Amino acid sequence: MTRTIAVIGCGLIGRAWAIVFARAGCDVRLWDPVPEVRDALPGLLEATAEVSRDDPAALAHVTVCDTLQDALVGAEWVQENGPERLEVKQALYAQLDAMAEDGAILASSSSALVASRFAEGLASRGRIIIVHPVNPPHVVPVVELCPSPDTAPEVMDTAEAFMRELGQVPVRLSREIDGFVLNRLQAVVLAEALSLIEQGIVTPQGLDDTMAHGLGRRWTLMGPIATINLNAAGGVTDFMTRYGSMFARLADSAARGEAFTQRAAEILAETMPGPDEVQTASLARDRRLAALARHLASEQED
Amino acid sequence: MTRTIAVIGCGLIGRAWAIVFARAGCDVRLWDPVPEVRDALPGLLEATAEVSRDDPAALAHVTVCDTLQDALVGAEWVQENGPERLEVKQALYAQLDAMAEDGAILASSSSALVASRFAEGLASRGRIIIVHPVNPPHVVPVVELCPSPDTAPEVMDTAEAFMRELGQVPVRLSREIDGFVLNRLQAVVLAEALSLIEQGIVTPQGLDDTMAHGLGRRWTLMGPIATINLNAAGGVTDFMTRYGSMFARLADSAARGEAFTQRAAEILAETMPGPDEVQTASLARDRRLAALARHLASEQED
Repeated sequence: MTRTIAVIGCGLIGRAWAIVFARAGCDVRLWDPVPEVRDALPGLLEATAEVSRDDPAALAHVTVCDTLQDALVGAEWVQENGPERLEVKQALYAQLDAMAEDGAILASSSSALVASRFAEGLASRGRIIIVHPVNPPHVVPVVELCPSPDTAPEVMDTAEAFMRELGQVPVRLSREIDGFVLNRLQAVVLAEALSLIEQGIVTPQGLDDTMAHGLGRRWTLMGPIATINLNAAGGVTDFMTRYGSMFARLADSAARGEAFTQRAAEILAETMPGPDEVQTASLARDRRLAALARHLASEQED
Repeated sequence: MTRTIAVIGCGLIGRAWAIVFARAGCDVRLWDPVPEVRDALPGLLEATAEVSRDDPAALAHVTVCDTLQDALVGAEWVQENGPERLEVKQALYAQLDAMAEDGAILASSSSALVASRFAEGLASRGRIIIVHPVNPPHVVPVVELCPSPDTAPEVMDTAEAFMRELGQVPVRLSREIDGFVLNRLQAVVLAEALSLIEQGIVTPQGLDDTMAHGLGRRWTLMGPIATINLNAAGGVTDFMTRYGSMFARLADSAARGEAFTQRAAEILAETMPGPDEVQTASLARDRRLAALARHLASEQED
């Protein structure tokens, strides 16, 4: 694969994307608005590649550019990783609209803002698409592809095929929805988890254990739908007949947005490792995510 | 560890429990009301042990008994795995109440019925406790410990310590709640998943991919609370400040029990492997769960 890719915004997500593109043999052009970030990028990229055990030789395909314009030269795919602030995205997409190559796909890593909020009115709006990774994408393969009402269907097709070529797992949404799929699922679990913790029914550790040593393992191997297909002798139809009304009742009694209280936040803060441990723990998590990806990939080969 | 354990009801869950107890060196006494099940148990147990790569020599500690009374002789822990039907549990616990050893803990694998519904009025009610595994417990370690209002606190303590000795991961609930923790979390995810699928926003495969290749991986490594603690530079307090209102809004717009529709069931049935594949796929899943448990355990040793 030889394609030219621009990665715009080079924080943790941008750097991980750079590895994803570079390991597949793409020419990767990086730009970040902060000069100090640009200067530090070669060292930071080596550290990022080390986490996923990527060969640092792949970084030979990566060029750090001094200007946005320079990064966009020849790029047929632009992966934007700017801050999640509407006015910043709007200003940035106005620039990309004016400066990117004709026909380039403008892919946003946005995890919350939907594309219509910053694509509207731009000439390139048909080529603007959400390509939302789980941080960091070089060790977690899923990417949500979410169109705005203006995104051309063939841009979705191209994005899906490209992500598959890269070894990522694209998930295609048919239309715009707040939170996409992943964060909608995360939201309902967090609401119920916070409520159970604040009620004192289970500790934060107990809640995490329930997922990590139980439910999460099945979901990691096959997802929630394939899971229920195996949880009744007659498959999913049997499951829904036997247990649908029980699960409906539980869902009806579940917590909603009101569970995100100050008090819940305080209980969590009391029991979780403190902010000074976040960076070290995140790095350890990313190494474990990489090891898990290798484990799951080795299963596919059996 | 030499304890005598009675396993009452020897379907998939009972057989997996037998392996959990036997591998730890307990003397295990099995009984099932169906004679054909009892006769088949030696072969079925070997097959169960093979899935988790347990040494079949551990099965030397297992005795199949002809009567309930015989299975209960000397047992200080009774693991009951009867059908999830209230009248069946009530009749069974009346028998256990009369026949089990003095002081024996009566642990139910019930996944939905709370203990107060079948323990009430029995002399042994202080020793009746829910010990809910994820099927099958010999390859998935979590067990939810849920008391009834009558369960003695020291029975909870004993159960927690015993499960830890066995190598399971006990999660202690402070009081009775419908669905315990695990199925409450499963309920909210299923409701939102079914809704997104029925709306056509994502396919069943896309929904499963989002979890299996994304969110589920973090949750398997550390659970949802430890996950959000690493999703903002300043830890969980920072996360709640930055993203709490966004997640609250998503939770408020999430689906509830009404998502468990006939139409959703039909869409799933159209795309999932059929009922004739459930048994083979379940066995493959259990082997993968065992491999995942080995992978995660090997990490702890690093």
